Amino acid sequence: MHFTSHRILEAGLTEREFTLGAVAGILWTPLAASSSAPAPLILMGQPGGFGMRRMYPRLAARARSAAAQGFAAVAIESPGAGDRPALPGAEQARADLSHAIAAGERPSADVIDRLILPLVDRAVPEWQATLDEVLGLPDIAERVGFSGGVIAIGTRLAATESRIAAAGLFAGSYVPRTTMEEARRVTIPLHVLLQWDDLGNDRQMALDLFDAFGSAEKTLYANMGGHTGVPPFAGDDAARFFARHLSAAVG
Amino acid sequence: MHFTSHRILEAGLTEREFTLGAVAGILWTPLAASSSAPAPLILMGQPGGFGMRRMYPRLAARARSAAAQGFAAVAIESPGAGDRPALPGAEQARADLSHAIAAGERPSADVIDRLILPLVDRAVPEWQATLDEVLGLPDIAERVGFSGGVIAIGTRLAATESRIAAAGLFAGSYVPRTTMEEARRVTIPLHVLLQWDDLGNDRQMALDLFDAFGSAEKTLYANMGGHTGVPPFAGDDAARFFARHLSAAVG
Repeated sequence: MHFTSHRILEAGLTEREFTLGAVAGILWTPLAASSSAPAPLILMGQPGGFGMRRMYPRLAARARSAAAQGFAAVAIESPGAGDRPALPGAEQARADLSHAIAAGERPSADVIDRLILPLVDRAVPEWQATLDEVLGLPDIAERVGFSGGVIAIGTRLAATESRIAAAGLFAGSYVPRTTMEEARRVTIPLHVLLQWDDLGNDRQMALDLFDAFGSAEKTLYANMGGHTGVPPFAGDDAARFFARHLSAAVG
Repeated sequence: MHFTSHRILEAGLTEREFTLGAVAGILWTPLAASSSAPAPLILMGQPGGFGMRRMYPRLAARARSAAAQGFAAVAIESPGAGDRPALPGAEQARADLSHAIAAGERPSADVIDRLILPLVDRAVPEWQATLDEVLGLPDIAERVGFSGGVIAIGTRLAATESRIAAAGLFAGSYVPRTTMEEARRVTIPLHVLLQWDDLGNDRQMALDLFDAFGSAEKTLYANMGGHTGVPPFAGDDAARFFARHLSAAVG
């Protein structure tokens, strides 16, 4: 992990850009965090494809909210996004998906697998490598939550990465068949956000995935407002979810 | 409305029992409420059949939580509960329901109508009469929420009683056919709690009812824990829902 920039934002927050191998990332740390009071960490997932530069204002806003709770936050460039090379088969899979949707058909499991699995297969080890490095910093505590982004990535991380203690997932996308199986192996507390009237979402698939999660504590939190209309209070409730699960062991 | 007792509870809260015609009730008012700073009001619904005496500890706990937010709260004895006469046909309908469940069958719409509609038909005007009286008190503001209880009662009240500004409903029971139609006419903000793993609940019916509500702001809030295992944080989130919708206009 190689830090390439370091600046103090106005909100009592340090922002450091880094590279880790071929992957660029940004780490935000509350100024109050120190080796004697290390900060819990939020892994901030992103929707696929947009790239960190375009998402920066939203990522920085989420990092500020995390810092207000005493949490550090980290984002990394998604496979195939920003300046990274396109994923193999992604263009064809997106074309096939658009074709199915335009024809009013339910996209086939094969198309979804071809679109999402290459992303998941790359993103999960990249998040784990990021964790390896960031958790080695003295001001970061090993109390980690995963938040947002592509639910298939969050599900596999929640199922396989034992350093993640809680996950806030956004039920906003089609999921590969393997994601349903991985969901059954998840046992950490989950907060699953669903936009009930998201026309680009398969609601029944989202409900089935929520049902599949093996966690004893899981909350489905469904609101109105369309795909991008998540109400402000939903963000507040998600913040309280992470406070419950990541703050307890702090101090 | 005739007050029959008046005492000050330890938690900064006045508790007054009353009768209104044949219906007994309890009104809790925060000591800070006055004619210059009247308190918003929570109508506290109850599950059918138990009676206020048995439910008193839970009702008083809910009233204390409401008072901590500056809200008054009122409960009334449900039709057919406590010392009130049984509802016509209720015994037969309950026997038919038990029979269907024991046989592993889905209860018929007819059985559900016979069980629930007589309760709704009586409870709704009784709540409205209670509102007429309580809103005439100088320390109660006309900022009213309905919370909990039988969802068919809450739905009809939300659809028809314009003095109710927000409702927190518990999706924990079968609903009559008319409730689905009434739901479409509801436009006030809703917070709908569902116990996802409640074996005595028809989950699909609960999801269909949530879908039917006409409100632009509605949240489905589904948790694990079985019928009686609503997690403590769900109560906190419901409290914040009422704070958003009832506190705003308070001086």
